[in-house]
Amino acid sequence: MNNYCVATYRCYDDKADFHKKAQGIAVGLTVGSWTDLPEARKAEMEKHLGRVISVTEFEGNAPGERYADLQIAYPDVNFSRDIPALLVTVFGKLSMDGRIKLLDLDFSDDFSAAFPGPAFGIQGVRSLLGVHDRPLLMSIFKSVIGHDLSNLREQFYRQALGGVDLIKDDEILFENPLTPLEKRVEACMSAAQQAESETGQKLLYAVNLTGPTSQLAANAKRAIAAGANAILFNALAYGYDALHELSSDPDITVPIAAHPALAGAFYPSPHYGIAAPLLLGKLMRIAGADLVLFPSPYGSVVMPKEENLAVQSVLMNPALPVRTSFPVPSAGIHPGLVPLILRDFGNDVVVNAGGGIHGHPQGTAAGGQAFRQAIAAALSSMPLTEAAGLEGNEALKIAIDTWGYKE
Amino acid sequence: MNNYCVATYRCYDDKADFHKKAQGIAVGLTVGSWTDLPEARKAEMEKHLGRVISVTEFEGNAPGERYADLQIAYPDVNFSRDIPALLVTVFGKLSMDGRIKLLDLDFSDDFSAAFPGPAFGIQGVRSLLGVHDRPLLMSIFKSVIGHDLSNLREQFYRQALGGVDLIKDDEILFENPLTPLEKRVEACMSAAQQAESETGQKLLYAVNLTGPTSQLAANAKRAIAAGANAILFNALAYGYDALHELSSDPDITVPIAAHPALAGAFYPSPHYGIAAPLLLGKLMRIAGADLVLFPSPYGSVVMPKEENLAVQSVLMNPALPVRTSFPVPSAGIHPGLVPLILRDFGNDVVVNAGGGIHGHPQGTAAGGQAFRQAIAAALSSMPLTEAAGLEGNEALKIAIDTWGYKE
Repeated sequence: MNNYCVATYRCYDDKADFHKKAQGIAVGLTVGSWTDLPEARKAEMEKHLGRVISVTEFEGNAPGERYADLQIAYPDVNFSRDIPALLVTVFGKLSMDGRIKLLDLDFSDDFSAAFPGPAFGIQGVRSLLGVHDRPLLMSIFKSVIGHDLSNLREQFYRQALGGVDLIKDDEILFENPLTPLEKRVEACMSAAQQAESETGQKLLYAVNLTGPTSQLAANAKRAIAAGANAILFNALAYGYDALHELSSDPDITVPIAAHPALAGAFYPSPHYGIAAPLLLGKLMRIAGADLVLFPSPYGSVVMPKEENLAVQSVLMNPALPVRTSFPVPSAGIHPGLVPLILRDFGNDVVVNAGGGIHGHPQGTAAGGQAFRQAIAAALSSMPLTEAAGLEGNEALKIAIDTWGYKE
Repeated sequence: MNNYCVATYRCYDDKADFHKKAQGIAVGLTVGSWTDLPEARKAEMEKHLGRVISVTEFEGNAPGERYADLQIAYPDVNFSRDIPALLVTVFGKLSMDGRIKLLDLDFSDDFSAAFPGPAFGIQGVRSLLGVHDRPLLMSIFKSVIGHDLSNLREQFYRQALGGVDLIKDDEILFENPLTPLEKRVEACMSAAQQAESETGQKLLYAVNLTGPTSQLAANAKRAIAAGANAILFNALAYGYDALHELSSDPDITVPIAAHPALAGAFYPSPHYGIAAPLLLGKLMRIAGADLVLFPSPYGSVVMPKEENLAVQSVLMNPALPVRTSFPVPSAGIHPGLVPLILRDFGNDVVVNAGGGIHGHPQGTAAGGQAFRQAIAAALSSMPLTEAAGLEGNEALKIAIDTWGYKE
């Protein structure tokens, strides 16, 4: 439907007439009342009226449990071209109306047109790094709170030596006297240059963008002026519109990696909240995240694999009229999982590790090297055990001895 | 504990060692690792280390179900003085780590000191209206989308004639060509003055503040310049920090009513999200909401009554070092419920109605009058049925005939 944005909900109710409920939503969240309007008024109001697109009923697993997926179309004319307006329209009051979860949103062309999306996207990030033929490797500082600049610089340098493509701040590192934003950027970028002179490899450092909402853009520009070449942003703590404004700011000239902090308050319940593919997929992408972190299916912070792949699918889906976002499944990742990750996510993925890099028995640099060796092996379809026996691949061998592997 | 903010979680796990889990959180979300640190380093890092305050285990209702309430103290030194930093620290990654819900936050004095809280609060709103001796009455437009200025003005005037103290925009009314912000304010405030010349009563009009995040403050000031004397704000769609910045802006000189749109994505699940008394109570208040709307226990959009009263209790709790916020339990309210509302919430409450005002058989103005008559009766402990028989109380009588009553 042109000029309508369509919301899909899953609604649990053992007794409801789901068709009636859908009609109630379509009217209640748009024109307010319909059947009692005079005909002349109906003609005027019709363009503001929500429409029921579909009602699909299901029997639940528990005895007597019933649920339905409802699709409701909301006229673009009712809301402004921003994510808060759309979310408040389709799920503001409705989120509080019983067991109902927002599964998906389909944006009209007109709504989408207000969103430039990721300024870099997968290809843009690849171009910055000059890496087009393999998955990227990201590493996370081991620990940052209470560490000073020289310690952070040393951690950064060790990670960079291992051949990682991106290094991200911890999302819980805020403005602090030990490692203030600009000093931290300067220290880490100087470590990046030192490492590059040895490895020949470029690197993006995603510095954590924090502070008051009104200062985010200025802080980002301060970081960029100090040399930052990427940004990490806790988008859900500030709202999607803050991400959208940052990503569409012409003076913010670096990729933005969206962190999923707080996402678990929204997506895991079957009955409430916002589904992960929308929360961490479509909305992050339309709001302009060049990279999106989300829980991997491999670690302790778990998201079911089908949900993971649905997030990834939305980040890459060519149907959305904006650049793709790099999927960054995170947590619980060690080199022995690389073939599995590539099988699950393909080559356009960022392999992201913390403990799987710093915990390497030979140290952080060897940890990064082990990942790079695992990626090279997986790309040439060589079993990890075989690659581990190759000359020069000692780091990979030790990683596999330490953490095991899955082919 | 001084200089620590304390988070309380409810954590469901049929097998976990909750004490170990609490320790893992306290370390993992602060210094990252502890037991393997050298002693000298421990001495330096101790001030950054989280502390387990308490672990209280419970047996659940289902066979074998176990849960625990965990209290963890996070050192102030680890995060900046803003709500995104605190939420990302205590529930960023952790929100995604199994069945865990954030129940409460206790702010340190130092953290609280960064938050002026509501600029008006209950007493300030009462002073603006000159009403100190009774609950306030708020009404909501019947429908707004697709209506033009003269229609909105007429709706406003009818509501104002009924003796309401506050009129709020619909939260789904965004910037639009029919009723743009400044024109809407001018039309409604002129209706307010016209009504005041007849009723002698002051009135606050909470206009919906919308638009891009970076323009919120400017839009608020435009509205105020046009005559707006209150603001409605969908705080959860923009983040608490946006509310905090608005409420502490010295040029935003009017009360702010926080709307709970999207709250149902957070609070209803027992296993995930953020509990309502924190989400709609403490965080809204510390962020500076002068009035907070939340689902009433009386209507179709239901929140259990104990949760309702817990929200109210936090909004009024004298232990927080900021002004109190007016509780506005909303949805499903008609005049016959007024004695019950006052019994549940006391006199410092805003009685908020939409259908219960506009649906009055004698029209909108009579709807407001019926509420005012019900409030007067309840305050003098007169049964509604008796008050309905008094001369001049026809509006109340008809309301009770229409919707019934509860004493």
